[in-house]
Amino acid sequence: MLLNENINPARVKAMSLVEKKALAEEIRNLIISVVSKNGGHLSSNLGTVELTIAMHSVFETPKDSFIFDVGHQTYTHKILTGRFSGFLKLRQENGVSGFPRPSESAHDAFIGGHAGISVSAALGIAAAKEITGEQGSVVAVAGDGSFTSGGIYEGLNNAGKSGAKNFIVILNDNEMCISKSSGAFAAYLSQMRSTKKYYETKNRIKQILGKTASGAVSGAKRIVKSAIIPDNLFENLGFKYFGPLDGHNIEELINVLELVKTIEVPCLVHVKTKKGKGYIPAEKNAGHYHGLDKQKQVEAKKAETYSEVFGREIAKLGQENDKICLVTAAMKYATGCNYFAKKFPARFFDAGIAECHAVTFSAGLSSKGLLPVFAVYSTFLQRCFDQLLHDAAIENLRMVLCVDRAGLIGEDGPTHQGTFDTGMLMLIPGIKIYSPFTARELRQCLRKAVLEDAGISAVRYPRGIAPDEPPDEQEYKDYVLYQSEQKTQKLIITAGRISRNAVKLTSYGADVLKLIKIHPFPETAYEAIKKYSEIIFFEESYIGGSVAEKLSAKLTADGINAVYKMKAVEGFLPAADLETQTKNCGFDVESMKEFTGL
Amino acid sequence: MLLNENINPARVKAMSLVEKKALAEEIRNLIISVVSKNGGHLSSNLGTVELTIAMHSVFETPKDSFIFDVGHQTYTHKILTGRFSGFLKLRQENGVSGFPRPSESAHDAFIGGHAGISVSAALGIAAAKEITGEQGSVVAVAGDGSFTSGGIYEGLNNAGKSGAKNFIVILNDNEMCISKSSGAFAAYLSQMRSTKKYYETKNRIKQILGKTASGAVSGAKRIVKSAIIPDNLFENLGFKYFGPLDGHNIEELINVLELVKTIEVPCLVHVKTKKGKGYIPAEKNAGHYHGLDKQKQVEAKKAETYSEVFGREIAKLGQENDKICLVTAAMKYATGCNYFAKKFPARFFDAGIAECHAVTFSAGLSSKGLLPVFAVYSTFLQRCFDQLLHDAAIENLRMVLCVDRAGLIGEDGPTHQGTFDTGMLMLIPGIKIYSPFTARELRQCLRKAVLEDAGISAVRYPRGIAPDEPPDEQEYKDYVLYQSEQKTQKLIITAGRISRNAVKLTSYGADVLKLIKIHPFPETAYEAIKKYSEIIFFEESYIGGSVAEKLSAKLTADGINAVYKMKAVEGFLPAADLETQTKNCGFDVESMKEFTGL
Repeated sequence: MLLNENINPARVKAMSLVEKKALAEEIRNLIISVVSKNGGHLSSNLGTVELTIAMHSVFETPKDSFIFDVGHQTYTHKILTGRFSGFLKLRQENGVSGFPRPSESAHDAFIGGHAGISVSAALGIAAAKEITGEQGSVVAVAGDGSFTSGGIYEGLNNAGKSGAKNFIVILNDNEMCISKSSGAFAAYLSQMRSTKKYYETKNRIKQILGKTASGAVSGAKRIVKSAIIPDNLFENLGFKYFGPLDGHNIEELINVLELVKTIEVPCLVHVKTKKGKGYIPAEKNAGHYHGLDKQKQVEAKKAETYSEVFGREIAKLGQENDKICLVTAAMKYATGCNYFAKKFPARFFDAGIAECHAVTFSAGLSSKGLLPVFAVYSTFLQRCFDQLLHDAAIENLRMVLCVDRAGLIGEDGPTHQGTFDTGMLMLIPGIKIYSPFTARELRQCLRKAVLEDAGISAVRYPRGIAPDEPPDEQEYKDYVLYQSEQKTQKLIITAGRISRNAVKLTSYGADVLKLIKIHPFPETAYEAIKKYSEIIFFEESYIGGSVAEKLSAKLTADGINAVYKMKAVEGFLPAADLETQTKNCGFDVESMKEFTGL
Repeated sequence: MLLNENINPARVKAMSLVEKKALAEEIRNLIISVVSKNGGHLSSNLGTVELTIAMHSVFETPKDSFIFDVGHQTYTHKILTGRFSGFLKLRQENGVSGFPRPSESAHDAFIGGHAGISVSAALGIAAAKEITGEQGSVVAVAGDGSFTSGGIYEGLNNAGKSGAKNFIVILNDNEMCISKSSGAFAAYLSQMRSTKKYYETKNRIKQILGKTASGAVSGAKRIVKSAIIPDNLFENLGFKYFGPLDGHNIEELINVLELVKTIEVPCLVHVKTKKGKGYIPAEKNAGHYHGLDKQKQVEAKKAETYSEVFGREIAKLGQENDKICLVTAAMKYATGCNYFAKKFPARFFDAGIAECHAVTFSAGLSSKGLLPVFAVYSTFLQRCFDQLLHDAAIENLRMVLCVDRAGLIGEDGPTHQGTFDTGMLMLIPGIKIYSPFTARELRQCLRKAVLEDAGISAVRYPRGIAPDEPPDEQEYKDYVLYQSEQKTQKLIITAGRISRNAVKLTSYGADVLKLIKIHPFPETAYEAIKKYSEIIFFEESYIGGSVAEKLSAKLTADGINAVYKMKAVEGFLPAADLETQTKNCGFDVESMKEFTGL
């Protein structure tokens, strides 16, 4: 075994090519075994094993900086940089995170849970090295999916003209982001992929690159393989382009990386990889094997996820109303858009990883009287604050946001935490926000938001299985008040998934108001809560900008003084399973009981 | 006179070429005269007179949709579409807005105060037309400055592959955004501008475009002039490219627009214009004449603006600490970055209109131990919420945001309203926010934020002159408590510019707490306010997510009950002069007195 807890970049460098190939296989087996057990990202990590080995053969972290984009392709890097043991506890409390974390290791130069940020971050790091005189290359590895994001373009545009030295962007082209890459860039890449590859000699390389690479080329003993497509999009943006290369050929990768390492202008290396490489089921269906979900495995198929409930209901609504359009940002399957997309392809739009475009595009649809619904993860909706305010809200355009993965996110950790959407959305004048708990409530809220509301509405719901109990109301209601058998002065206000725990406190002597519409606060509920002398809030949201803050301010402004206490999410939560996170936040029954003083 | 209140697109269409040229001169004179009086955007509007006349000669709004990006180049369009009289009251209450507003006119297809959104919005409109079967072209006009924004790339990427018909993007290339365009894209355009222009015959056009344009070309009687640069960046993104054209040659513009109007794939028309065209002072210094500011003219040069105070102080700090880097997003002069940029060019970075890149790039600098300061308008900071949270805050990176144009914005209207930054920023765990009033306080806050704080800090200040009275404290303080001569139970809490009015209420029997650090709430101030039975907040921020909400929630959570009343900005404010807006919001002395019950 080449792979054990003593593996490190120096050992990788010292290996022969044959050993590196064997190492790749061992890493691949380890990833499959750990991800099968702990959940995590499978396909993308199987695709980048050889690339990461080649990078560590040529560069030296942390002197050289690697920035992965999106960072879920970083497992091999973690395994090779002193985290072999931690990797066995991937995504668990005190194990390694599923994404790069500088606070976890000096070998992780930058965080990487959201797409499209690597070139900008890398340019900042390169500029800092220039200013401080620190040596070292900066290497950003970005998937072709990330290249559908405007952030990448802003980064390339700034980098291409910066004169940044030892600045390398590796385009990891696996022909898909999470689902199939769409857009003109994808088509362009596809055309480049099929371009005949030229095998260049060192003289020819020298000739093309001019003086900048002369040191490199004269030092290179071997013939450098590189296909140069002249006058391409990347060259237009000021990069020297190398590719397309076989991303599973360690030798070829090493040769080209050694060359570009010495070139003193920004370089783009185009690498073709295969998502799921080496694991036949994942190769065949990389979308399905993009992320494995522990919960999904455990709970099997006894109930639908919130995403599926949303997906089936929006498809029904699409049948009833032909103005409804569905928009996603590269999350067709993950958010359940596939049902609608199949039935109404002309009214379904996948923006790529381009959330800003998705909102502005939706605003365009809305300006012509259509009914756009944008299904998006809470954490990625953070990208659209300005678009929602400026492009949509000022002119009071109609739009429904279906905010998936809202609240605690478990093993994905702080980069994917869905606790900031409520506070952000409540800053938008005129917005309505729903937070259903059961599958039935989700269907009801969605129906109301899409068919009845005006302006912007948002329906937020968590990751995981949507319970169909209790059967509750047949019709949509803004809230449900659960009364204790005892007469009580204590009222708990809560919403969504954690209301299941709160409702149990009725048997200990508190009334519980479960909000379904969380903003604006329902008027009749407001009347009902005035009589309590103690109101306790539990919110699966960041404590700042919470419903609790807003409501207690309103109550006191109206002169209604009581004791208002609030328990909400206080900051960024480390990765852990959902149960642990729930307990750590004080949302389990026992903690709630204690906080409520029961 | 061709130009009078009866001007409309049909009349423009009926004019001869000679008349159109004369019309252009009349419009140009009108714009100069109105902008000199009312303030507004001069250079960009002088640059687009002929282009707009050509567009209205070829297309028919509102059947065809025009989307201007940024919308401050839209004056000619407004004048020609039934708003001649309204234009005389440009940017005044009940006059026309300085930006496109669909609620103002059906001829304005989409709002346009923020850059880079036009292609996405246009694609939404085109998709809606496709779905509903509505006829008409969609034309997005975007400046080269907007092309530095990632939003444009996301739009082009989606549009280029969409098969959208009658979809035209006009690149209005005036070689600068607000200050000189930077980045690789600008360099690329510059190279394209100097490319030899080919004069193509209709047969040649037909040959290049293939069948798609056959109708158009066979219908065209004249020889179509068009320079085709093969295999360029736009063609790579799926657009048919036409250009570069002379943007002041009405005939050439009409000929090409008539051609592209009939082409059934997305087209990009590259038009070279001259900012400030026809007004010599503006042609020579388009940056200075980008926007004229009423206030600047009236108050002349007796005091410095907040931006200038910031600019001079950060330049001083740059001298004292060589880790400080200054970042702007195409607002070098407007935010006062020019002093620092001149002294420390290696530590100054202009991102272009790419606020997301600016924050992520700053996070990259910070990850290597430097001290990035990002100077940005409040309204544009809205674009960076995700970057601040994910790229910077999770890893607790150091960064100072200098939030210019915070609060009421006067004549620029709701698209530029600076009232959402506080609420948004308070959602970021660990952030510190300052809201200085005087020039001295601004210098003190900046110094503290840059030299002493950890994590992310923000200093927000309004547009306009920074008062140097009262001299106040020599040293930085978190707050100042102004006590009435009478003993009182009423406390006013406020911050920033409007504290000047609030402090006057001490003579009517209220104490006034002027916050300088508004978040987190200063601890000693918190102790001091507990004794009051009535607390009244005045905040030049959106009422949701306000300091008032947060503080009254905290007070009640601590069981400190009093009457808490709050007055803040309740939504989007129509353009008006600052004094009117201040009064409409209840921030003038008289309204404050009444609200406080004095």
